[in-house]
Amino acid sequence: MSEPVRVGIVGLGTVGSGVVRLLVDSADHITRHAGRPIVVERAVCRDVDRDRGLRLDAGRISTDIGTISRDPAISVAVLLVGGLEPARSMMVELLESGKDVVTANKALLAEHGPELFALARRRGRSIAFEAAVAGGIPIVAAIGECLAANRIESIRGILNGTSNFILSKMEEDGADYGETLALAQRKGYAEADPAMDVDGTDATQKLAILAHLAFGVWVPWAEIPRTGIEGVDQSLIAQAAELGYRVRLVARATRTSDGLAMRVAPALVKAGTPLAETRGAYNAVSIVGDAVGRMFFHGLGAGQMPTASAVVADIIDTVVGRTAITFRTTGVLDAEGPAARLGGGDLQERHFLRVAASDRPGVLSRITGILGEHRISIASMIQHEPPGSSGAAVPLVIMTHACSAAAIAKAVAHIDASDVVAGTSVCLSVLEE
Amino acid sequence: MSEPVRVGIVGLGTVGSGVVRLLVDSADHITRHAGRPIVVERAVCRDVDRDRGLRLDAGRISTDIGTISRDPAISVAVLLVGGLEPARSMMVELLESGKDVVTANKALLAEHGPELFALARRRGRSIAFEAAVAGGIPIVAAIGECLAANRIESIRGILNGTSNFILSKMEEDGADYGETLALAQRKGYAEADPAMDVDGTDATQKLAILAHLAFGVWVPWAEIPRTGIEGVDQSLIAQAAELGYRVRLVARATRTSDGLAMRVAPALVKAGTPLAETRGAYNAVSIVGDAVGRMFFHGLGAGQMPTASAVVADIIDTVVGRTAITFRTTGVLDAEGPAARLGGGDLQERHFLRVAASDRPGVLSRITGILGEHRISIASMIQHEPPGSSGAAVPLVIMTHACSAAAIAKAVAHIDASDVVAGTSVCLSVLEE
Repeated sequence: MSEPVRVGIVGLGTVGSGVVRLLVDSADHITRHAGRPIVVERAVCRDVDRDRGLRLDAGRISTDIGTISRDPAISVAVLLVGGLEPARSMMVELLESGKDVVTANKALLAEHGPELFALARRRGRSIAFEAAVAGGIPIVAAIGECLAANRIESIRGILNGTSNFILSKMEEDGADYGETLALAQRKGYAEADPAMDVDGTDATQKLAILAHLAFGVWVPWAEIPRTGIEGVDQSLIAQAAELGYRVRLVARATRTSDGLAMRVAPALVKAGTPLAETRGAYNAVSIVGDAVGRMFFHGLGAGQMPTASAVVADIIDTVVGRTAITFRTTGVLDAEGPAARLGGGDLQERHFLRVAASDRPGVLSRITGILGEHRISIASMIQHEPPGSSGAAVPLVIMTHACSAAAIAKAVAHIDASDVVAGTSVCLSVLEE
Repeated sequence: MSEPVRVGIVGLGTVGSGVVRLLVDSADHITRHAGRPIVVERAVCRDVDRDRGLRLDAGRISTDIGTISRDPAISVAVLLVGGLEPARSMMVELLESGKDVVTANKALLAEHGPELFALARRRGRSIAFEAAVAGGIPIVAAIGECLAANRIESIRGILNGTSNFILSKMEEDGADYGETLALAQRKGYAEADPAMDVDGTDATQKLAILAHLAFGVWVPWAEIPRTGIEGVDQSLIAQAAELGYRVRLVARATRTSDGLAMRVAPALVKAGTPLAETRGAYNAVSIVGDAVGRMFFHGLGAGQMPTASAVVADIIDTVVGRTAITFRTTGVLDAEGPAARLGGGDLQERHFLRVAASDRPGVLSRITGILGEHRISIASMIQHEPPGSSGAAVPLVIMTHACSAAAIAKAVAHIDASDVVAGTSVCLSVLEE
């Protein structure tokens, strides 16, 4: 049996506590996979007195990250502090002091990935971050290693468990957005401040990291077009269902002749396809590679133990040396340029369009006329008789044939500026697989 | 740029040709992932004169494996010859001559895995075999590395594309088994001799390999209870559908208090669950880990380029040194014992039972009575009026509550030996997720 490897854990929140628990409770199993024991030498947190029910001597817990960075016996540091600061400074200190780092902080990597990766490389250290994207789903390893022979054509993911819980629950219960968000908060699936989840920020940051792995380019996450789920109402979900689709918050990166098309937005996904059938707090990723075809991964994207599972897998990979190889030997994490051009105007796909049409003669012909002017052809259309008095706005639901996102955006702007609508239109991409 | 790595390919059939094509056509991309170029130095096949349309000098192709094993410039050999012999002797020769080996031959590993792994270890070499199970799905890496922190509770897989094509096609077309098998053969989804696919051998061999990775024990594949799909008829598929299930050939390994429960057999899988919605030649694997919860993987399990994708990923892993770490440093591939005890009599689950009941008074009470004697309780029952004349056998479809496989097997034997049935009963496990 080799010498134990000593690790330091920075942050003993939900995930940090789960990591300590896993390392202690599954020590035998983990030793077999790592070829040597992995010992939690020290932990750092803000409140050392809080009882977390961990089997960790009080003397090993401190508020000072220096107890880890200055300890030469510790070779691997696990950074489980969220947000940008002090997480960024901590990461720099750990790398500068010669530690390999494992982290689950996607915001930090999405914001400062290239500079942190470059620092790690200069110092001959590695950063492992499987837990930063899609929790327990081993998507970072899948793209960086398992699909290494493939030129990736596209990635589609349900990367935010909170949003997916809300959307699938609205669908099941017929409840509205606000009500379902409140339920998600009561059940612990949504934070007290859910903004970063429901406005698409979290999914967009994860998409930026996946795109870096898959396409070798670094796209600043804030430049990726992003729409959250706040505008999804019960009638939209019902209209989608009537057409045979489910509404999901889909993060997408697609290689096109015109650059990389990336976006995060609610989309209609064909019922019965794996992405559409992803429910609750689950995450899912669908990847198309030129050799392997379409691959699909599904699992818990958040939560204490699924995330801890990914963190500990990264610790093992770092301990045995696999991470160093992936990080330092291969060119996987070298950005080819400072930023990729975002294209995607020519991504041809079907669209779902809901227009709040005025209920009077000639309106339908006017709307279809505008679509025709923009060369958008209609595949199907649904207009139910309005339940109330006539004269009010009635939802006109249109499914288009494939058209470019840019063309339909223009057409929608044209329709919304006309005098035949009584509200803003809703336009979503339609994914058939 | 580092020195190129030189590989030798043994076997230029469908997969071998795909591997050469991928290494040549995607050389730039692969070089980035491997940190150095990977060159096909030599290939060995039975018929050197056949035109495979490969960009490989004729002078590099030979019928003599010695041209690879004796060439000190070649460090990695890719063994893509199927069956047991001469594949086994070739593998031994390649390992003995100091080559790391990549293979897609699951029959060879299922039959001789422990001795070949031991030989590789003695020689300080590695064997990589991602392509041997579930083609392009990176399930070997997922279990051996990505889920390393988890104690695996269970594995369920659709591991044979031919069988799944036939079962899902029978469901879609309403056609019968023989007819659909013939279609699969015409379309190239089934071999001229499909025995190893439809009788469950192929799936069982893959299950033995996955169980070795997941549970650290070696179970000789021939000892795993196995039922093929030859007995699945259109009426069975229709009866399952009526109850809300689909028939799938499921390979399973489940940890129980009584040992490892393993089997390959057609099962009823709840419609809408990921395994049930796996169609055509796709493969799927569902794994439950104690930390990560339920993970699901879906992708093409066979075919030239998906399999080549997995082979080339293994070549890259071998070239960069990740395989050596997984294979030699960790204990993942050390069998803990020569053979695990197969338990599983106590795996409690629901069962689907179809009895060919005689159409006369008292039969129903007799059959339910026998089930009661074996303490099997009935959840639901369907008996339609027979279409033809009375007096003939009518199918009686029973869904049980959870019961042990051993108990229901005894009850079925008892029923089939009685005078109230006019044929053999069909009994399948029911999987709700």
